[in-house]
Amino acid sequence: MTLTKDTNILIIGLGVIGGSYAKALTKQGYCVNCITLEQRDIDYALEHKMILKGAAPDDKEMIAQADLIILAIYPDNCVKWVKENADYIKPTTLITDVSGVKQCVVDPIQKLLEGKAEFISAHPMAGREQSGVEFSDDSVFIGANFIITPTDSNSQSAIDFCRDFAKLLGFARVSILSPQEHDRMIAFLSQLTHCIAVTLMTANQTPDMEKFTGDSFRDLTRIAKINDLMWSKLFIANKQALLEEMDSFIAEFSRFRDMLAHDDADSMRRVMRLSTARRSLFDKPTQNS
Amino acid sequence: MTLTKDTNILIIGLGVIGGSYAKALTKQGYCVNCITLEQRDIDYALEHKMILKGAAPDDKEMIAQADLIILAIYPDNCVKWVKENADYIKPTTLITDVSGVKQCVVDPIQKLLEGKAEFISAHPMAGREQSGVEFSDDSVFIGANFIITPTDSNSQSAIDFCRDFAKLLGFARVSILSPQEHDRMIAFLSQLTHCIAVTLMTANQTPDMEKFTGDSFRDLTRIAKINDLMWSKLFIANKQALLEEMDSFIAEFSRFRDMLAHDDADSMRRVMRLSTARRSLFDKPTQNS
Repeated sequence: MTLTKDTNILIIGLGVIGGSYAKALTKQGYCVNCITLEQRDIDYALEHKMILKGAAPDDKEMIAQADLIILAIYPDNCVKWVKENADYIKPTTLITDVSGVKQCVVDPIQKLLEGKAEFISAHPMAGREQSGVEFSDDSVFIGANFIITPTDSNSQSAIDFCRDFAKLLGFARVSILSPQEHDRMIAFLSQLTHCIAVTLMTANQTPDMEKFTGDSFRDLTRIAKINDLMWSKLFIANKQALLEEMDSFIAEFSRFRDMLAHDDADSMRRVMRLSTARRSLFDKPTQNS
Repeated sequence: MTLTKDTNILIIGLGVIGGSYAKALTKQGYCVNCITLEQRDIDYALEHKMILKGAAPDDKEMIAQADLIILAIYPDNCVKWVKENADYIKPTTLITDVSGVKQCVVDPIQKLLEGKAEFISAHPMAGREQSGVEFSDDSVFIGANFIITPTDSNSQSAIDFCRDFAKLLGFARVSILSPQEHDRMIAFLSQLTHCIAVTLMTANQTPDMEKFTGDSFRDLTRIAKINDLMWSKLFIANKQALLEEMDSFIAEFSRFRDMLAHDDADSMRRVMRLSTARRSLFDKPTQNS
């Protein structure tokens, strides 16, 4: 599949990510339609020239015409949507998604579509703390990471399409991981960090502390403003991997705690030197220049 | 005491904070000298017009002439320095510091100086990840918080002086706390966050994860690049308060872990809504406008 100005692109779900995809694609002259629950979101997107047409979920005609379908809804809803709509989708249509967890999406959807349209799963690693189409912002894609999680049942041409598509949206680095590898990695890099930020924000509720805060506390808790519905779904959908990361974080944190309890400055300093060296690897490429 | 262009200001220790004080004060036309260990740091400061004169620690003449002394060295070294130099300091001289922990500095220094010069302790809540005079940057003070931690033995005029001094350096909010309150608050807002960042950086050492990272992981680990000597001293100097905060963090994190283990989405969502509401309090004032 090659994206042309005639490709009929259908986005399912006009939230902050679906809306950002719509903005990025429409700006470049592509033909974007959408299906979403709320008429007011469609009105907003039409008003801001983000889409050509919008429809409610019962518009099967719009599904039947789509060449490329992007599922920008919660993981469990992706599976439900495919179950309900698989029969309306053209066999030549390519379907992709934006889910932050993969095993619970890829396996059931590829089974549902066996012998029908191809589903190639992807995770755009960019987002905003706010949710809703009015917070759409395609600039968050610029320089961000994009992960494609193909399985044996995916074609090379679908993988190649996804890679080009990510570049077109502005993503800087495109990687290929298996759904399992993705979920393990995301449990640590993204889900664990959100659990930590939330805990830090709720562990000590002494009043007036905001008067004394510095930037480091603000940095660690920026993501503590969180979409509780989406993240509780993501955490539960990736429960085993996340529990493992939480347990190994508790173990490592407790080790550091015990070093302090024993005034063991040498061991603390060794851990901090390791942390300093490892953190350098995670600087943004532009920060090194 | 009132700061004038004739006030002889002496900074002890030309590190990143001492250097930033020197820059801010010299820029505004004040007379700044310094005492520090390394001649190369003095040369750097003279070359960059940050100070008038610099000397090695054995220059007692420079100490005897100072009207305002700023201790910009590690907490334990502050106490040691006062012990060794109390007899050279004029009785009218005001002494302050920049330490990140207070009880272990304020009590012993005020005892050492009883009947001599006045020591009023302060904590400028601004810093940089890098250490060394070459990373001095007085712009980090702009808009930051400044905490004064007086005791019963301090005069109102010293407190008033410190408040004006903080404003002159560029700090936005000046607060008064007891040394005890300061140390409890800093254990949570600053020391705990550094322990978390270090642990997150060392808990999972799977290779190549930097290829997949997003900004949230980068935000949570920015301070994991850490001056291991200074922070191990700060942690140990505030051990009891920090251990309490670490233990209550572990308890809260473990509660959240158990909610996940039991698929208890409702409880997780309740915690996340609390975290979202509380985090709003910590937005920078400018972020609200």
